[in-house]
Amino acid sequence: MPETEGASAIDCAHGPFDNAPIGIFDSGFGGLTVAREIVEELPNESIIYFGDTARCPYGPRSQEEVDGFVQQICTWLVDRGVKLLVIACNTATAAGLEHAQRTFSVPVIGAVEAGARAAARATKNRRVGVIATKGTVESECYPRAIRHIDAGITVFSTATPKFVDIVEQGLRISNGPIEDLTSKASKVYIRPAFQEIAQDYLEPLRRCEVDTLVLGCTHYPMLKALIGGVMGHGVLLVSSAEEMAKDVRETLALRGQLAAPDNEPTHEFFTSSNAVEEFQSFGSRVFNREIGRPVHVDLPEL
Amino acid sequence: MPETEGASAIDCAHGPFDNAPIGIFDSGFGGLTVAREIVEELPNESIIYFGDTARCPYGPRSQEEVDGFVQQICTWLVDRGVKLLVIACNTATAAGLEHAQRTFSVPVIGAVEAGARAAARATKNRRVGVIATKGTVESECYPRAIRHIDAGITVFSTATPKFVDIVEQGLRISNGPIEDLTSKASKVYIRPAFQEIAQDYLEPLRRCEVDTLVLGCTHYPMLKALIGGVMGHGVLLVSSAEEMAKDVRETLALRGQLAAPDNEPTHEFFTSSNAVEEFQSFGSRVFNREIGRPVHVDLPEL
Repeated sequence: MPETEGASAIDCAHGPFDNAPIGIFDSGFGGLTVAREIVEELPNESIIYFGDTARCPYGPRSQEEVDGFVQQICTWLVDRGVKLLVIACNTATAAGLEHAQRTFSVPVIGAVEAGARAAARATKNRRVGVIATKGTVESECYPRAIRHIDAGITVFSTATPKFVDIVEQGLRISNGPIEDLTSKASKVYIRPAFQEIAQDYLEPLRRCEVDTLVLGCTHYPMLKALIGGVMGHGVLLVSSAEEMAKDVRETLALRGQLAAPDNEPTHEFFTSSNAVEEFQSFGSRVFNREIGRPVHVDLPEL
Repeated sequence: MPETEGASAIDCAHGPFDNAPIGIFDSGFGGLTVAREIVEELPNESIIYFGDTARCPYGPRSQEEVDGFVQQICTWLVDRGVKLLVIACNTATAAGLEHAQRTFSVPVIGAVEAGARAAARATKNRRVGVIATKGTVESECYPRAIRHIDAGITVFSTATPKFVDIVEQGLRISNGPIEDLTSKASKVYIRPAFQEIAQDYLEPLRRCEVDTLVLGCTHYPMLKALIGGVMGHGVLLVSSAEEMAKDVRETLALRGQLAAPDNEPTHEFFTSSNAVEEFQSFGSRVFNREIGRPVHVDLPEL
């Protein structure tokens, strides 16, 4: 009788290819920074993106309410046949990731783990700062995830909700591509608003002498240069998007569920808001390519 | 005034190169499977390996006692100027990783996290088995780490301590390179002993219908083909060594502490046992290259 030997996690995968789409969602278009990284890392993959702009922002809402949104939108995406779910929103991850992982049979990747891991690996003085929405900070998901990787790290967290407003204001004022949000021209508009509150928000973290700062909200990478200017050259800024894309790739590869090399990928966009033109305009700039006209979806009230 | 912007976690690292060695230890020579992967992944890096063979095996000892060993050996390695510590032993990781991370200023990478992450990503039916020593199973470190990645996974753990004895017996009997341990010739010697207990150990996990099995002890990869034969073709076997080597690389890269490309690496081996010839003979086969004569170190009793 021929011997059957166990497969190696490294040598081979569980199965062949899988061209089903990846489901990605966020409270708005901030998660498109993550979608962009996923599409760059995995150009053969189809994606379905859902932006819950009608109920944005999630930050000030209760954990229970956001958990309900996560269940509702993940169900909607799973019904569309996605092979993997990405919660591209820190607040929604903090409130609903574990419940979603227990509910759905496809893997669910959140926004916290990847950034926490990168920060835990990078810090040299083992003092890590986290800026995020109120909901994310109160959930303490970042300190938990960072100390799970390295129990010797001290984590300093602070809620910086007004940064989200500044990004949205900046997107409305500036018409250039998203990188321009921190360019000289845009700074004329958003710098005064930013400087006024950045000092209040960030000075306590500077005094704590963190050498690594997690941008714990998908909007914040759009303020990276301004935040870096306040924190100073010695502080490493970690945003999760690129690390999340790597997690998606490794998960699909290990499960034998990457799209076939000859797959012709589709990128579909849905929003719960009626303002589809605004979503298309902002979204194309955050996604860094034309997203086409998104489809409006009326989610039932919970 | 020129603007100072925060560094990106991806674009650049904290500092330049660092040629200090990586410290690796295990209760014996099982951790040399990890050292081998680290040297293959990072050929410019120097390593200092400590095998605590005089007190091997750690498996049946209390958590407190093993934690004391971890503190003692990490202190010994840090005193030799290592830039990073690797606990290449699951039992020692379960008992002493967090304490070590809080004690030492260099990063400490354990054996559990990387394997747990690979298993959580790979499982398709979300039923993961873990085989390990008694101490590792009782610490529940694997279920915790796996569910930290995916809360929807059910973990089935079982202690398989006699597998360690079989490996050691196999190393004594067979003189070929380590891959031969599961070759036809060696199987003549170790298969009867293996088959007798493998059924008892592994049949309950088979009945639980796990599709992924973590080899939660650095000795077990040397029995991979035999374990795979009992578990069957549909079960993915995950060993941590390669994943740990990737964690080491990414941690050093993020901290700007990789060795310089022109570094001439050294590999030094130390053992707490008097049987240095045996360590040299077994060790060279597990490490897959000649390790030279290891240096005996007399550790004070705790």
